[in-house]
Amino acid sequence: MTDNQTRLGVVLFPGFALLDVAGPMQFFNQLSAIKPFELSIIAKTMDAVYTTPPKNTVPESKFDRIGEALLPTHTFDNAPEFDILLIPGGLGTRDETIANEVTSFIKKQYPTVKYLLSVCTGSLMVAAAGVLDGRKATSNKFAWPWTKIHKSVDWIPKARWVVDGNIWSSSGVAAGMDMTYAFIATVFSPDIAKELATKMEYEPHTNSEWDPFCEIWNLSSK
Amino acid sequence: MTDNQTRLGVVLFPGFALLDVAGPMQFFNQLSAIKPFELSIIAKTMDAVYTTPPKNTVPESKFDRIGEALLPTHTFDNAPEFDILLIPGGLGTRDETIANEVTSFIKKQYPTVKYLLSVCTGSLMVAAAGVLDGRKATSNKFAWPWTKIHKSVDWIPKARWVVDGNIWSSSGVAAGMDMTYAFIATVFSPDIAKELATKMEYEPHTNSEWDPFCEIWNLSSK
Repeated sequence: MTDNQTRLGVVLFPGFALLDVAGPMQFFNQLSAIKPFELSIIAKTMDAVYTTPPKNTVPESKFDRIGEALLPTHTFDNAPEFDILLIPGGLGTRDETIANEVTSFIKKQYPTVKYLLSVCTGSLMVAAAGVLDGRKATSNKFAWPWTKIHKSVDWIPKARWVVDGNIWSSSGVAAGMDMTYAFIATVFSPDIAKELATKMEYEPHTNSEWDPFCEIWNLSSK
Repeated sequence: MTDNQTRLGVVLFPGFALLDVAGPMQFFNQLSAIKPFELSIIAKTMDAVYTTPPKNTVPESKFDRIGEALLPTHTFDNAPEFDILLIPGGLGTRDETIANEVTSFIKKQYPTVKYLLSVCTGSLMVAAAGVLDGRKATSNKFAWPWTKIHKSVDWIPKARWVVDGNIWSSSGVAAGMDMTYAFIATVFSPDIAKELATKMEYEPHTNSEWDPFCEIWNLSSK
């Protein structure tokens, strides 16, 4: 990327996983102190979006899950074009209506993005948008059975993250931080990525094939 | 903790570090699926609170930093009592008014909390509240010089996190996740902590003395 302003978009939906957004955004927030960024946070409406999973996406329980609410700056209808578009995952992706809305937004934006990044089950919606057809990608390992729905994607079970063309996909939740580290090292500079991680006191996994969770969740390593 | 509802409070202030809140909260959000929790997010007012640092806390720059906004559920004035109170850090702690407001809230709440947790420079406000006098604690390594203000605290430079009595303090930003893992393993159960981290695809540092950032930032190891 040059020193021109980077237009970054982050999608929210009810039941997104907080760390899927916050891990990458802690890097980008800090990066914006040394490189110019413009951030849009996009959702269906301008109402605050809760991480709490919709009732239909989780087993019935005696008590309610807790969650936090983030504020959008744009809606799916009025969002601008982006250089980087980040799609988080989370339990909300199990709701068909929610997943379809995000998938439609990805379809609309993909032709004009420079880079599309997904964390966790966000890649299932990227796949549903058809933009991963014939490409390699990864996803959350606990939710791996759902990748089978998208047969035209070459899903890689043992991977912390996968890059194919301009699409970066990471494994579950915390893996988004390692993907973002590698993304910034590749697209901005390795020194900048290291500086940000050192200030965050984060030790990134820098090998994209590091993935103990593939075995923990009993997936074949392909 | 028993199976009674755990009352968890998280403090927000302008310029809090997103991951200081979101790292621990990803654990607690998931934990609330198996243990009953009640979450309060507390700030000065009920307005959304931005991670963007106040202008007076950062060097002048050609461009504005990006940030996200989280919604509070309570104010410093009407917050209930808590079992666990989490104090994040961030650049906003450099603003005297902000730091004083959070410090006053900690002073008011400490007598009734079971556990006080801080991430990053959050420990500087915990120290200012006087509740760390004569106790061990740690803080962000980049911001270490500020710990010298609080001479009555036994600051530990080489530590991922420190526990003294009912006060848990972690090192910078990402260290909050490792502290939370250890906290849940200790206070709930090691198996639960492991289950949450495995679902998050997070590999925690489980040694509280692991701290390469102490050397990176040239701090003596005591």
